[in-house]
Amino acid sequence: MCELLGMSANVPTDICFSFTGFLHRGGGTGPHRDGWGIAFYEAGGYREFRDPHPSVHSPIARLICDYPIKSNIVISHIRQANVGQVQLANTHPFVREMWGRPWCYAHNGQLADWQALPLSFYRPVGSTDSEHAFCWLLGELRGAFPEPPEDECQRHALQETLHRLCERLRGLGVCNLLLADGDYLYTYCSTKLAHITRRAPFGRASLSDAELTVNFAEHTTPNDVVSVIATEPLTDNEEWVSMMPGELLVWQAGMIQAQFNK
Amino acid sequence: MCELLGMSANVPTDICFSFTGFLHRGGGTGPHRDGWGIAFYEAGGYREFRDPHPSVHSPIARLICDYPIKSNIVISHIRQANVGQVQLANTHPFVREMWGRPWCYAHNGQLADWQALPLSFYRPVGSTDSEHAFCWLLGELRGAFPEPPEDECQRHALQETLHRLCERLRGLGVCNLLLADGDYLYTYCSTKLAHITRRAPFGRASLSDAELTVNFAEHTTPNDVVSVIATEPLTDNEEWVSMMPGELLVWQAGMIQAQFNK
Repeated sequence: MCELLGMSANVPTDICFSFTGFLHRGGGTGPHRDGWGIAFYEAGGYREFRDPHPSVHSPIARLICDYPIKSNIVISHIRQANVGQVQLANTHPFVREMWGRPWCYAHNGQLADWQALPLSFYRPVGSTDSEHAFCWLLGELRGAFPEPPEDECQRHALQETLHRLCERLRGLGVCNLLLADGDYLYTYCSTKLAHITRRAPFGRASLSDAELTVNFAEHTTPNDVVSVIATEPLTDNEEWVSMMPGELLVWQAGMIQAQFNK
Repeated sequence: MCELLGMSANVPTDICFSFTGFLHRGGGTGPHRDGWGIAFYEAGGYREFRDPHPSVHSPIARLICDYPIKSNIVISHIRQANVGQVQLANTHPFVREMWGRPWCYAHNGQLADWQALPLSFYRPVGSTDSEHAFCWLLGELRGAFPEPPEDECQRHALQETLHRLCERLRGLGVCNLLLADGDYLYTYCSTKLAHITRRAPFGRASLSDAELTVNFAEHTTPNDVVSVIATEPLTDNEEWVSMMPGELLVWQAGMIQAQFNK
């Protein structure tokens, strides 16, 4: 199984603390040695870093820990290969452009009969069930919504469609996933995903996977709202909320903006 | 004006030497301070690094100089903004998936009336003439070739179509460009692009923009063929070949595989 990490914040925020803990699961405290990746939506753009090598030994991963990239949405993934060999094309996150926006996707789980999911606009570059499912999902969304939603009603319809598509993937196996378009972060739980929202008064947090404590009060302003979503809680002194199977959360600016249940 | 750098090689080769010289033009010896990017096609995948900050001050750029990523095709770009503000979404190279392959593109020049180029499958994320032209060009190619070429004859037809599209862009202004799909590197010259092919017996090369000399004989085997394409020659002790306006070269495994003239 792979590990997922996501962030949604109302101010550009770096993910160095959470990523440092997460990183240790990539061949350190965890068995996830088969590559890793991280995508940032920053003011004015999108970029990603991916490496097919274990994250604990990756100089690129070390750079990400040390170089605070300020972002409103982050998606990261550490891979333990099941379908598709260990290579760059099979490392998450995957990205495709729809409506002039970069859509980014990472998946934890394993699907059956995924080859039968029909593809239209998008085709996988690698050989994973995850990327095939992403190409299918985004193609279905684009077929149903050739143009981006223009009002709250259309946005709700889009999110309902997305939930229905996620539920179809859950019918094929384990499918925890993170998806983002720069404005919204979508988190869908099939078996395991937990989240925490940090806001004033900020306190201390200590990582479960590495010897590191941070006092968020020193790095934030009173209006900051920062939510972190991960396969397993990353800290051992805070209350994380477990998502329910079949639950889709829509995050915007650090807060849950909509929720869909099975 | 921006600066372009490309590489095509018959064995996975790192670009550290050429990139070190190229990098100095990003706010060092050159005026190109408005971001940079580099894309690598490696065995089994594609990845890119982009930064909206000047390359001489970028810790990510330093990493690329020091971390030899072995690649068969590289495309890099240093930006001096003319159309579109300085931001991540406007840094080259741009990438879109077509036929399950990542197509990567970087442009040097400035186009008139680019907004009138009609878009179909692909839309720009940023606001540059370059990305709009790329989305148009790839959409036209995809419209003409919904499936990848299956034989030499279809491949020739595709390359002819590409040359015709490049010539249309040249009709709108200055358009030197690099384009790749992982197998082929396409270089098109509107005003300025030069190339060099290095093969046995390998010798020494010294950078024009930085105090660095390399003895390629120490880093290569007798069968290696490595070609570098850049806006201006990067070394001062080798013979670079200038491309002609309207010329499209198709590179594969370090060698020119096809050539189209205006």
